[in-house]
Amino acid sequence: MDGDDGRRITITAIAREAGVSVPTVSRVLNGRSDVAPDTRERVEELLRQHGYQKRGSRTVSRAGLVDLVFNDLDSPWAVEIIRGVEDVGHGAGVGTVVSAIHRQSTAARQWLQNLRARATDGVIFVTSHLSPPLHAQLRRLNVPVVVVDPAGVPATDVPTIGATNWAGGLAATEHLLSLGHRRIGFVAGPTHLLCSRARLDGHRAALEAAGAPVEDQLVHPGDFYHASGFAAGTALLDLDEPPTAIFAASDQMAFGVYEAVRRRGLRIPDDVSVVGFDDLPEARWASPPLTTVRQPLVEMGRLAARTVLRLAQGEGIDSPRVELATHLVTRDSTAPPRRP
Amino acid sequence: MDGDDGRRITITAIAREAGVSVPTVSRVLNGRSDVAPDTRERVEELLRQHGYQKRGSRTVSRAGLVDLVFNDLDSPWAVEIIRGVEDVGHGAGVGTVVSAIHRQSTAARQWLQNLRARATDGVIFVTSHLSPPLHAQLRRLNVPVVVVDPAGVPATDVPTIGATNWAGGLAATEHLLSLGHRRIGFVAGPTHLLCSRARLDGHRAALEAAGAPVEDQLVHPGDFYHASGFAAGTALLDLDEPPTAIFAASDQMAFGVYEAVRRRGLRIPDDVSVVGFDDLPEARWASPPLTTVRQPLVEMGRLAARTVLRLAQGEGIDSPRVELATHLVTRDSTAPPRRP
Repeated sequence: MDGDDGRRITITAIAREAGVSVPTVSRVLNGRSDVAPDTRERVEELLRQHGYQKRGSRTVSRAGLVDLVFNDLDSPWAVEIIRGVEDVGHGAGVGTVVSAIHRQSTAARQWLQNLRARATDGVIFVTSHLSPPLHAQLRRLNVPVVVVDPAGVPATDVPTIGATNWAGGLAATEHLLSLGHRRIGFVAGPTHLLCSRARLDGHRAALEAAGAPVEDQLVHPGDFYHASGFAAGTALLDLDEPPTAIFAASDQMAFGVYEAVRRRGLRIPDDVSVVGFDDLPEARWASPPLTTVRQPLVEMGRLAARTVLRLAQGEGIDSPRVELATHLVTRDSTAPPRRP
Repeated sequence: MDGDDGRRITITAIAREAGVSVPTVSRVLNGRSDVAPDTRERVEELLRQHGYQKRGSRTVSRAGLVDLVFNDLDSPWAVEIIRGVEDVGHGAGVGTVVSAIHRQSTAARQWLQNLRARATDGVIFVTSHLSPPLHAQLRRLNVPVVVVDPAGVPATDVPTIGATNWAGGLAATEHLLSLGHRRIGFVAGPTHLLCSRARLDGHRAALEAAGAPVEDQLVHPGDFYHASGFAAGTALLDLDEPPTAIFAASDQMAFGVYEAVRRRGLRIPDDVSVVGFDDLPEARWASPPLTTVRQPLVEMGRLAARTVLRLAQGEGIDSPRVELATHLVTRDSTAPPRRP
């Protein structure tokens, strides 16, 4: 996973090149704070350039632990991924250490500090933001890293596991078209995430293939959370010619659309059909149960665990990026449009 | 936490009393499988009677890990408790190892095997079923154990953290009574769990204090899951004189009641008010947002982590059982009853 694996440069050589003492390089390597920032940066840069690997740190012993790191544990799908990783870990005799770093560099530093104090066989990041400095430090620890990435951001040289977002967008809209809907609203995810773009493109591809209108006013921005789904749903229902169906690019936004529909005194699916994306457990409990595109989150967690354990044993992997298939789960929130 | 802590009986003495060799006792202590079941049972019983503690196993070193063990990771509140434990662990430089044992003794054995292969500073069980054999084995490993127990089953000699279920039941029903409801349906949890009983008793206490009817036909059994809430809601709405409000003893059952109401073509809260119990994140996303009794799950996780870390450092605890306060969160699913 790291082309520099075979190279072996010594601490002494790094110290010489950086113009510092050997203990200083050690301090940088061990993440100690008593190093001047300039010096640390210079030494880290050289370590990076030379692809320095702590000697023998990989093969000495199995820690029996895999680290699973989230930005936040309040992502509604966090527990799904934990289930997948824990399931594989359990079978392999490996414990799953769950952490949250809250998108804060201080929390990430603290986490890294904790990680240094014990061993780990590998790290699974669930994130759209594995920051380059954090990634560099993990590489220096010589620990295998895998990214589970429901958001679809490509990480350059880290094995990444995602889902087929474009195909999911296509399938949801094809379903609505097959029921007879032509005016279909879309509530998009954050524009800076590739997965948002892929879902929207899939939606548009289905509309264009069917010769249905692709109107800008039918696409409303959102951020994957409930409140933005409510706002977008309200805006779409306020249009002079409102859509007969709304496809929200996350389940949480779909629940926001539910609330917008309810506040209007309308009913799902009688007056408006709604489709989500994710298939969280909550989708089954919604009233009516939500038709949605299933992301195989448990399976993504399982594959991530298997991949990181493989890397930990020095085995190779088949592909740097794997996308698992999404598929449409039809429940009670979609029906043919009411005849005018 | 264990009255036998101070006693120090030797393996030799146990072997003599059991009529077996010293290595056999060691094999039992180390969980090896090459011991006859009868012998194992006799030795374990003697170890238990004498409160045998592995010598010095506690003070040697900090593992920097706390184990958090669930029956199943699909409990809707699992992630809430993980958040609390992780939060405290993160601050203390301790990793949170999350496991699921699926109520299966094989999975529990495998987990224990994994635990023996590495160190842990303590175990937090989230369960209503810390089985006596598992508990005995954990005691033999001399690892502190704390139980987080949203179900309210009292564990005799383990520190337990719960919530005030009776007070929560009382508060929910007082809220409905204050809105003017008199006929209030109740969807109960599993009868073998104390928390179910406590919530129902709180509900009845509020009714009796207000002189409202306490009718058996208004109390319907459930199992905390969605389907049972749907069935109970349907049955309650089918009564000749249906209730004007339904209090479900879990949020998931309340969502089932939502679906029963919707299928009848009725509206919440216009036609029927609904109250839940838990305050899962989903309660905010329901349509309408659910009035419910908040269990402080994150705080319960935090307290459990602090307690187990304290025990790991040989400190005492204040009380073997602590109940954190529940409180009513009023949202949009409750309103005064429709005038007849």
